[in-house]
This record gives sequence, structure tokens and C-alpha cells, in this order.
Amino acid sequence: MDLEAFRRAGHAAVDQICEYYATLDTRPVAAQVERGYLARALPDAAPASGESWDAIERDFAQHILPGMTHWQHPMFFGFFPSNATYEGILADMYTSALTNPGFNWNASPAVTELEFVVLDWLAKMMGLSSAFYSNDLSHGGGGVLLGGASEAALTVAIAARERALRALAEQHPESAADPVGWRASMLPKLVMYGTTQTHSIAAKAAMMLGLRFRALDVSRDDAYALRGASLRDAIAEDTARGRIPFLLVATYGTTNSCAIDRLDEIAEVTRSSPLLWLHVDAAYGGVTWSLPEDRPKALADAFNARFDSLSTNLHKWGLVQMECSPTFVRDRRDLANALSMTPDILKSKGMDPDALNDLRNLQIVLGRRFRALKVWFVLRSYGTHGFQEHLRRSIALAQLFAERLGTMPAFEIVNPPRWGLVMFRLRAPTPDADVDALNHALNDALLARNAELFLSPTVLPGVGYCERLVVGAPATTEAHIDRTLHILQECADAVLKN
Amino acid sequence: MDLEAFRRAGHAAVDQICEYYATLDTRPVAAQVERGYLARALPDAAPASGESWDAIERDFAQHILPGMTHWQHPMFFGFFPSNATYEGILADMYTSALTNPGFNWNASPAVTELEFVVLDWLAKMMGLSSAFYSNDLSHGGGGVLLGGASEAALTVAIAARERALRALAEQHPESAADPVGWRASMLPKLVMYGTTQTHSIAAKAAMMLGLRFRALDVSRDDAYALRGASLRDAIAEDTARGRIPFLLVATYGTTNSCAIDRLDEIAEVTRSSPLLWLHVDAAYGGVTWSLPEDRPKALADAFNARFDSLSTNLHKWGLVQMECSPTFVRDRRDLANALSMTPDILKSKGMDPDALNDLRNLQIVLGRRFRALKVWFVLRSYGTHGFQEHLRRSIALAQLFAERLGTMPAFEIVNPPRWGLVMFRLRAPTPDADVDALNHALNDALLARNAELFLSPTVLPGVGYCERLVVGAPATTEAHIDRTLHILQECADAVLKN
Repeated sequence: MDLEAFRRAGHAAVDQICEYYATLDTRPVAAQVERGYLARALPDAAPASGESWDAIERDFAQHILPGMTHWQHPMFFGFFPSNATYEGILADMYTSALTNPGFNWNASPAVTELEFVVLDWLAKMMGLSSAFYSNDLSHGGGGVLLGGASEAALTVAIAARERALRALAEQHPESAADPVGWRASMLPKLVMYGTTQTHSIAAKAAMMLGLRFRALDVSRDDAYALRGASLRDAIAEDTARGRIPFLLVATYGTTNSCAIDRLDEIAEVTRSSPLLWLHVDAAYGGVTWSLPEDRPKALADAFNARFDSLSTNLHKWGLVQMECSPTFVRDRRDLANALSMTPDILKSKGMDPDALNDLRNLQIVLGRRFRALKVWFVLRSYGTHGFQEHLRRSIALAQLFAERLGTMPAFEIVNPPRWGLVMFRLRAPTPDADVDALNHALNDALLARNAELFLSPTVLPGVGYCERLVVGAPATTEAHIDRTLHILQECADAVLKN
Repeated sequence: MDLEAFRRAGHAAVDQICEYYATLDTRPVAAQVERGYLARALPDAAPASGESWDAIERDFAQHILPGMTHWQHPMFFGFFPSNATYEGILADMYTSALTNPGFNWNASPAVTELEFVVLDWLAKMMGLSSAFYSNDLSHGGGGVLLGGASEAALTVAIAARERALRALAEQHPESAADPVGWRASMLPKLVMYGTTQTHSIAAKAAMMLGLRFRALDVSRDDAYALRGASLRDAIAEDTARGRIPFLLVATYGTTNSCAIDRLDEIAEVTRSSPLLWLHVDAAYGGVTWSLPEDRPKALADAFNARFDSLSTNLHKWGLVQMECSPTFVRDRRDLANALSMTPDILKSKGMDPDALNDLRNLQIVLGRRFRALKVWFVLRSYGTHGFQEHLRRSIALAQLFAERLGTMPAFEIVNPPRWGLVMFRLRAPTPDADVDALNHALNDALLARNAELFLSPTVLPGVGYCERLVVGAPATTEAHIDRTLHILQECADAVLKN
């Protein structure tokens, strides 16, 4: 494809993307394809000779689009949102055209520098303490745009383990004889904490590192929040057993029910646990710290005073395309101590000797895409007010949904709605009804209509099987909420009739 | 930004990308900015109200573009290439518009299914055994498109450790009493191998996992290739010390000098080492397996018969934008055993019970972008012939460079050129000249002209400080090679005069 062919194809692609968004509402929300449909439709080897762009584009429309579940669809309410914006598409176009791995400053200065600029914009918008500003050189704090919450959890776990092992090694001079062996011998003692409601990415991080993960109990009475007392008891218990709690992954808005761990109590009970790294996984909920009315002062103060790190996914509800997880740490040296390793080929002049300013030292991977551009485009085009407005709109629509569902006798809301999330299920029509079975049947009925709307079910401890509805796509309006309620009523009627 | 504003901005962006490529040759290759230039130029907080796209685009042109080092520039010869193609830009546009995390089949069937289709296209193009085909259900082999070589190395290390620990646990029934503790107690025994020329991503993977990494010696006499005898000796030595070699990261084309470890000898000496996972990091060189004339039969046969995995970066020399590292494994169950963990919210009907067909079970992260689309666009538009032609063109230009440099008395080629890479330095003008100092001076002279061309220096063991030139950008032509030689001669004259 030459330049003029690209110009034609590019203009056509822009128009097709416009057409896609203009007609999104008319498309099936979930892909209506059978498993294996694509391998059957496509050749089993690449063509020897290049094909025309017309043919490729035709196949894209015919084979790929029907296999997509449309997360931008106004009737997509599953999981958490995965926002796309026009500004994000424009950023991805430029990022793609300028492709470079940005692993250190001079690999492309703008990649590194814009990242620190937008991280500070985000930190300020979210009310983080200046200890987390990247461009404030009076301290080591700052951030990095990681690819997602999984990567953030793993990155933080590696950094926390390193910080703990360094501190322990200082207390054990004998470690110097065989540092690698001594460190490895400490690993069985280390334990990472989360709760039974923490996203599996935390336990997976522990599993990948070969470390213990302990899921602390939470209860429905506490709205599934980790309480200080549970943490204090666990620390006491593990310490008595010779174990070393080195990382707590607290959550600000769990995936299941948007539970918020008690950061204030956690900060309080860990005053005498210097080895314990306090991280907040705010993958979905973190963006709400940009709403002053929705940022609990006690929790924010506790975070700013005591916590070591926080990560949120702008690519969920934050209007920025995947992959974009701003991760703030109180001391970037903790990342660099664990992740910096400089090969000869990068030790050339013109490179920064300051490890904190080369992205590769703050992340697992060496190189990756120019992530800051899309954040910059979105924050400038929306402004903080527009960003806030988007969140408030989703919250208002979720409240509207909850209010109207609350008037429908067949349903009950099983957990207080939070942000864009409402959890509900069919009510027991008779005292001896099997409510879980009923709600499985409801889910089957909803699945059969997943061309019209998309929800995801879950199991809420102490409640059982239920549905999650999450408002977050910018395209969703009140009319879609009403359409959803209508479909839910139809499905309920069908299930209850049987 | 509404739909029509996006249409205008999108069309303008396409034209600006065309303008960018049409004028690439006239831009400074390396960014000519001072550290900190951007924080000084931009506001230190996001705007409260949204700004016009015109203003944003103007600032992009004024502040971001000048801070980019242009890896697509025909005079960019640094590191390894980071190819961008028009097809890749188009794919990124659609990927961005369709944003979704594709973590399992029904999150977007096309994301998973197209990935397995293009992985098989690649495996066939590269001559991999059918044991590595994803859509052949007669075995567990197949692949996944990871984000990069760092992620591939870490993923493979986690899988290899898990496979080794499972095998060891079977030999030690006492492990069942405290599996986590027992496993942790084995970690100090595990050792990962690479060579002194293996990319630091391997040692970094070991560091991140808290495991030992042993860099085996290689020599200039062996063209920096790992030989079977060295590996055999290391295995014997470590085994005698009670250590357990569990992973070898062999390299097909090292970053420093494109050395190729002797896969044939490695396969031979590891016949009686069932715990040892054999991986090939072919980040740069792997794509050359698509060239039948450049795929050494003995090595390919050894790989296909014995090795466990291979990873290559299409986003280096393979015409596909970042991030795209096809990683092939002989048994995907080894990935799933180490990486599968299913939260309740994903345990809904309509999900595949077969862990091997959900991407999240084959990778560190839960969700990520639709990576297969850009591979599909590129392979269809270029065809295998066009893909091969691109590689052959780079190789021919590198050979041309080497031939012409070979006639310039000031320079010597310090290592046999391979693929797009030529390594050279200034020759000692007198017997007692400090050649390294001379070449540092040459590098300083080249840095001062990095608006015109971009090389990266390195240290080649047994040789010393030298320059690496890598041809790989599609835009590079013979004229750029000649321009490069001219600049080199000017720099050499200046350095040798002093």
C-alpha cells in the first residue's frame, strides 16, 4: 500500500468508523457467531501475493465485525466499561504512525515527558498528594502509565517484595554471603494480602511470583470492605507463624460489587508494619476521585498520608482507549530498585543516568507504545469538567435504572448501587422458591437476547447468583435504560411463567 | 467532540499522517530538544473546560512532533527497527474504534479467533512444525500474541517454573502437606540460563521472579553463539551443586551482534534434561525464518523437534506496529497451568470451559487490545512474498552498506554482517592508537549529527566500543545508505584530524 492508497483507505476508514458509531445502536450488542466461525471462513495460510485493500476491507466487514461484541454499544452493561472516544482514536492514529518503543528518554523524548505531564494532571485531578507528582523533583514519588490492572498488580508486587527483601537483608548481615540464595530462602515466609473480593489479578500476581496470597474475609455486613481489625488479626497471626506480610492489595471498588476497603482503618492498623506495602487497586473506581463530591475525605487522607501506590484504569470508565493504567507510587526508587537493568546497548551517551526518568526502569517491559498521547488528547478535549460530567452522567443513569427497577415487583436490588453499578435479581415469588435457579433461568433468558443487551451475572456472597448492570458507555441514554428495563420485565415474565 | 467533528479531525489526521510520511526524510531523525522541554511548555494541570481540536492539534505539531525521534525515518539505523506500516495504522484505527479487552472468547469472539488464525499463518510462514499450530486440536500446542519480548520472556519463565515444580512435586509426595511452602523452598535451587549476550530481558525476568540467572560464557571464536558443550558443562556443574536448571533462553539473533545460539547442539545435550524448558528469543531474527534461504535447516529441525517455545517481535522488523510478539509453545497447557485463574464474574454461561481457548489463560494480563487485526491486515496486504521482499530489501541494503564501508580505509567491520545489522568502527590509524577512545569520539561526532542519522553504539566483547547500523525502515533506500557513508566519512575525517 503506497501513500496515496493509504490516504484513500484512511479517509474511508474514518468514514466507516463514523458509520459504525452512527449505527451502533442498531447492531447486535453481543456477537451472534458460533465458536470456530472464523477459522472456517478464512484461509488456513497467508496469501502468497498481496491482496487489494478493497478485498481486505470487505472481509473485515463480513467476517470480523460480526464477531465483535460491541463494548461501545449503548446497551452494553457487562463487566466494566471499556471506553473508547474519538479523541482516543485520533491519538491511536498518531501513535501508530509515529511507532517507537520509548523505553528511555532519547528513544523519543516526548513519549517520556508527556507521560510525566499527564500523570501529574491526573494526580491533581484525583486529589492525590504532591508526593505522587512525577515532575516534582523534591521527592522520589511519581507514576507510570502501565498497560492494565494485571500489570499494575504484578509490578507493585515485584517492587514490594524487593523493598521488603532489602529491608530484611539489612537486618541479616549473613545474607551477603549468598544474596540470591538468601533472598530465595525468604520467599516462603512472604505473604501478600487481599480479600475474598479482591480481583483475581492479585492472587494471580502472587501465583506468578510463587508467593503466598491470603484472601482475608469480608462480610456483607461491612459491605464487603476490608476492615482494619481483620487486617490487624491477620498480621498478628501471620507474624506469630513466622510469616512476613509484605503487600496488601486493597481495593477501591471491587469488580464484583464495587466494595471499598477501609483505607482509613488500614492506614491506622499498619502504623507498625513498615515492611507492608499498601497498594490500592482502583481499576474501576479510581477515576471517581476526580469528583470532589465522591472522594471520601477520610479515605483520601489516609491514602495520601500512608499508602505506597494506587492504580486506576483510564481504559475502563476514563474515556481513554486500552491500554492505560496510571500507577502512582510514593517512591519510584522502589520500582527502579526492582526493575532497572541496563544492557550495554542502552548505555550510550545522551541517555539519562537518572533511572527514575527512563520508563523502562519503572515497568516490567522494556519498550511499549506512546500511551500518554491519548490521555493528553482526552483531558484537553474534555477538560476536567467534561471528564467529570461523563462520570456523573453514568452515575445518574445507573441511579435512574435502580429507581425504576425498584418499582418493578419481580426484582430486588441486592446491594446498594455504587457509581455505574447496580446489582439485582429476581425476587422469590414464593417462600420456597429456589431463587438461585430462578436467576440462572433469568440469565439464560438474557443470554438469548444478548443481541439486544449485555449484562454479566455474578455470585454475591451472602446473596447468591445475581445480575450486574454497569452503565459506562458514553452512548448510553435514558432511552436505553428504559429499553433495558422493558427487556428485563419481559424476561422476568417468561421465567416466572414457567 | 461529536461525530462530525471527529469526521473532520479524522480526515485531517489521515492527511497529516500522509504529510508526515511524505516529509519524513526532511525531518531531524532524533529529537532536537532539551530534557524537560515539555513540562516547561505545557500547563501543569489539565484544563477545566474542554479545548478545541484545532488548539490540541496545533500543540501536537508544535510540542509533541519536535520531541519525537523518528524511528520510521529512512536514516534511522539505531537499536532494531520498530516498523510501522499503513496497514498497521488502519488496523489501529479500527482496533481503537472497537475497543474491548478480549480476555475470553465471548468478550469478542473475533479477537480470539483471528488471533489463532494469524498465529497459524505465521507458524506456517516461518516453517514451524504443526505441533505449534493453534487451530490443530490434535495437540495442545499453539500460540498467543504477547505485547513484547520482555513479556514473552517473563511468561515463559513463569510457565517453565510451574512445569518444573509440578514435575518435582510428583517426585516428592511430602510436598502435598504444604504445597506453597514446599514450592517456595524449591525456588532457591532453580536456575535459568542465558548467555552473556542474551538480552537483559531474560535476566530481568529471573530478577522479577526472584530466581537465579546464570549467564553462560560465549566467545568471539564461536561468533558469540552458545555451544552445546558450555551448556552441558553448566548443567553438570549446577546439578552437582543441587541446583535445578529449569529454563534456557536461547537467542536467535542477539541484540548486540545478531549471534545465533546453536539450537542443534542445545537440543542434543539436553536430551536427558526433561525439566529444562528450551525457549528461543528470536525477537529480531525470528521473522527471517519466513525466508527459506535464510532458515538454517539443522537449527529449524532442532527447534521443531525439541524446543518448547519461541517468540519473535513483528513490531521490530515484521511490518506490524507495536505491541505484537507472537509466542509459540509446544503445549499451551503449560501456560494455562501457570496462568489460569478464573474469577466468579467470568464463570458465566456462554464462556468456554476450555482454558486453552481463552486468551487470559495464556498470558500474564487479563485483557488487552485486539492485536491480531494488524497482523491480518499486513499479511494479507503484503502477502508472504511482500513480507519476504521487505526483509530481503533490508538485508541487501545492509550488505551494500557493508561492501561500500569495506572500501573506506578509515573503517573496519568488526563482525560478519547479519540480516540488517552491520557492526563497525574506526580502525587504529597507528599501532599505539587508543581505538576505543577514537570510537567514542566518533560516536560523539555522530551524536552531534543525530538530526541527520541515528546509530547506536555498543561494546562487542573481544573487540570493544563500536557502532551498530541496522537497516529496517521500509523507507530506507540506496541513496540513504550512500548519505550515511558520506556522513561517516566526514565524522571519521574530523575525528582522525584531532
